[in-house]
Amino acid sequence: MKLNIALLAGDGIGPEVIDQAVKVSNAIAQKFNHEINWKPALTGAAAIDAVGEPYPDETHEVCANADAVLFGAIGHPRFDNDPSAKVRPEQGLLKMRQKLGLFANVRPTFTFPSLIDKSPLKRERIEGTDLIILRELTGGIYFGERGRKDNGDTAYDTMTYQRFEIQRLAKKGFEMAMKRSKKLCCVDKANVLESSRLWRETVQAMEKDYPEVEVTYEFVDAVAMRLVQWPSAYDVMITANLFGDILTDEASVIAGSMGLMPSSSVGSKVSLYEPIHGSYPQAAGKDIANPLATVLSAAMLFEDMDLTAEAQAIRDVVNKSLAEGVVTEDLAEGGKAYKTSEVGDWLAANL
Amino acid sequence: MKLNIALLAGDGIGPEVIDQAVKVSNAIAQKFNHEINWKPALTGAAAIDAVGEPYPDETHEVCANADAVLFGAIGHPRFDNDPSAKVRPEQGLLKMRQKLGLFANVRPTFTFPSLIDKSPLKRERIEGTDLIILRELTGGIYFGERGRKDNGDTAYDTMTYQRFEIQRLAKKGFEMAMKRSKKLCCVDKANVLESSRLWRETVQAMEKDYPEVEVTYEFVDAVAMRLVQWPSAYDVMITANLFGDILTDEASVIAGSMGLMPSSSVGSKVSLYEPIHGSYPQAAGKDIANPLATVLSAAMLFEDMDLTAEAQAIRDVVNKSLAEGVVTEDLAEGGKAYKTSEVGDWLAANL
Ligand SMILES: CC(C)[C@H](C(=O)O)[C@@H](O)C(=O)O
Ligand SMILES: CC(C)[C@H](C(=O)O)[C@@H](O)C(=O)O
Repeated sequence: MKLNIALLAGDGIGPEVIDQAVKVSNAIAQKFNHEINWKPALTGAAAIDAVGEPYPDETHEVCANADAVLFGAIGHPRFDNDPSAKVRPEQGLLKMRQKLGLFANVRPTFTFPSLIDKSPLKRERIEGTDLIILRELTGGIYFGERGRKDNGDTAYDTMTYQRFEIQRLAKKGFEMAMKRSKKLCCVDKANVLESSRLWRETVQAMEKDYPEVEVTYEFVDAVAMRLVQWPSAYDVMITANLFGDILTDEASVIAGSMGLMPSSSVGSKVSLYEPIHGSYPQAAGKDIANPLATVLSAAMLFEDMDLTAEAQAIRDVVNKSLAEGVVTEDLAEGGKAYKTSEVGDWLAANL
Repeated sequence: MKLNIALLAGDGIGPEVIDQAVKVSNAIAQKFNHEINWKPALTGAAAIDAVGEPYPDETHEVCANADAVLFGAIGHPRFDNDPSAKVRPEQGLLKMRQKLGLFANVRPTFTFPSLIDKSPLKRERIEGTDLIILRELTGGIYFGERGRKDNGDTAYDTMTYQRFEIQRLAKKGFEMAMKRSKKLCCVDKANVLESSRLWRETVQAMEKDYPEVEVTYEFVDAVAMRLVQWPSAYDVMITANLFGDILTDEASVIAGSMGLMPSSSVGSKVSLYEPIHGSYPQAAGKDIANPLATVLSAAMLFEDMDLTAEAQAIRDVVNKSLAEGVVTEDLAEGGKAYKTSEVGDWLAANL
């Protein structure tokens, strides 16, 4: 197979972790006889510095014409506490999601047997956790009208949802549920929000098309609680953009290490794959960041291309590296801490 | 002291837990020579059944003229999955908050040494946790304009904040921080929302009035993560209505039992005190619900009336009941499970 993959390294530790995913993907390509054309492009603070824009048109062209996008991280502290900054790296992320139509953020949360005791949660609470949060990514309060009134003394943001946006995400949720345990949980705030009531009524109307799927409806506040109480009770969850932002980050705690968690953002034409950790600027350039989340994001990419054996080979070698302690300092626990690049080399060599 | 306290038992287990708080408060009144006039009034599903309204005007009159309101719980499953229900118990709650001007929901989270191992979180993560979330309660997306467009296919909700609403809440936050560890965390989503940028800019402008307070600004998604990773890192937190709804419920997991967590909702004239657990309909009428959260809410009430010794006496007797195992079934752990009413009797007798 020939694959054109847009490569957006981004900011902070982005370039370092991306390098390892490229190494591993190239080794996979060699082993399984594929050809990968990597198409690097600028994004984030790096792109602001170079061309004044966090998601330049040229980058969009590269992404829109690729088979998939592999993405590192975006964000730089110099923009964080400056409310007056006109151009922010995050705007690039939002623009990218919108222009590429990445409507569904897929966030698996699972535990690694060898790492289960690193979780802040007790072992018996998280054993067997294997859930997926499907976060709507191109609608809701992220993209509604916002502004100021009364000479700047009043500010507003609008959470808007259209029925088709909910249907498109819910469809993915139902389909995933069918391939898994046939349980789907719709997370909303229908006791307060009109947009949530539209979510609930839309999903309820779709239930008849998937008679085997058992659908539950829960309020976001209750889920924020239960997710850390009994995460293994959940399987596929669907939710709005803002709720998903909060819940996926909360869920990332379960596994005990952000450095391991991959994600994909699915569009109708092209999809994007990225680690869930951020740009972690304190570690940038030090060759110490954990590359596994990015490597596992590449596995999701292969999986979505129906290259199942390839994806499994990556997951297997990652498990092997964990079992053999070939890990970066965040997981080293007094043992030897390998460099980011060393972990990447080891994975590529041991495939 | 003469106290007029409005008594809103509400739905589900509300009446049962309220009864115990009344017993304990009456015992306190006797011991410390106060006079409490309880003014019962209808609310929630109970009020809908009686007068067709979840927060009737008569109830508002009672509350508005009281020195404080003691509240049980509100909500009934018969309304939950019925999007067409025109009158819902929760509307009563929202109307009450708005009409009484209860602008700040105060939610302490702390651990009980004798219960620390009941938490889903590991002991070393939560030991020493003692934080307060101040949730804005009468603004934001709960009270903004909402509705439908496009023949019902589009739904919207508006998150609106005015500068004075933020100032009023932040002022309470700064004042609390001054009495505690002088750390204040403003939780928002200023990298996306205009209303959050108004929050940040308003709080930043107030920093100079409290030079001793160290203020940090964090994004709600990051906080959802860190709150279960290292809860003891937080002290006073201020946040918008919707974020507070989610984070306070998430934080309630830390203590290991919802049945213990009190709260207050502060207004400019009158304040309201309630347990954070809901109406727990499955347990209603069984005399098994844990009354301690409501009893501790009464302690917050006394505290706010500057009756510090009275509040401390309640907290002491609660700790004693925990230490001696005079607890309801949720905390019994194989030991004897006391009835709700028995715990109340014991507390009143042991003050
Ligand atoms: C950086 C920010 C705009 C972004 C979001 O809120 O979507 C991030 O938190 C995420 O979840 O990818
Ligand atoms: C019942 C509901 C409207 C309410 C809220 O969202 O405020 C509840 O969750 C709470 O936190 O008191």
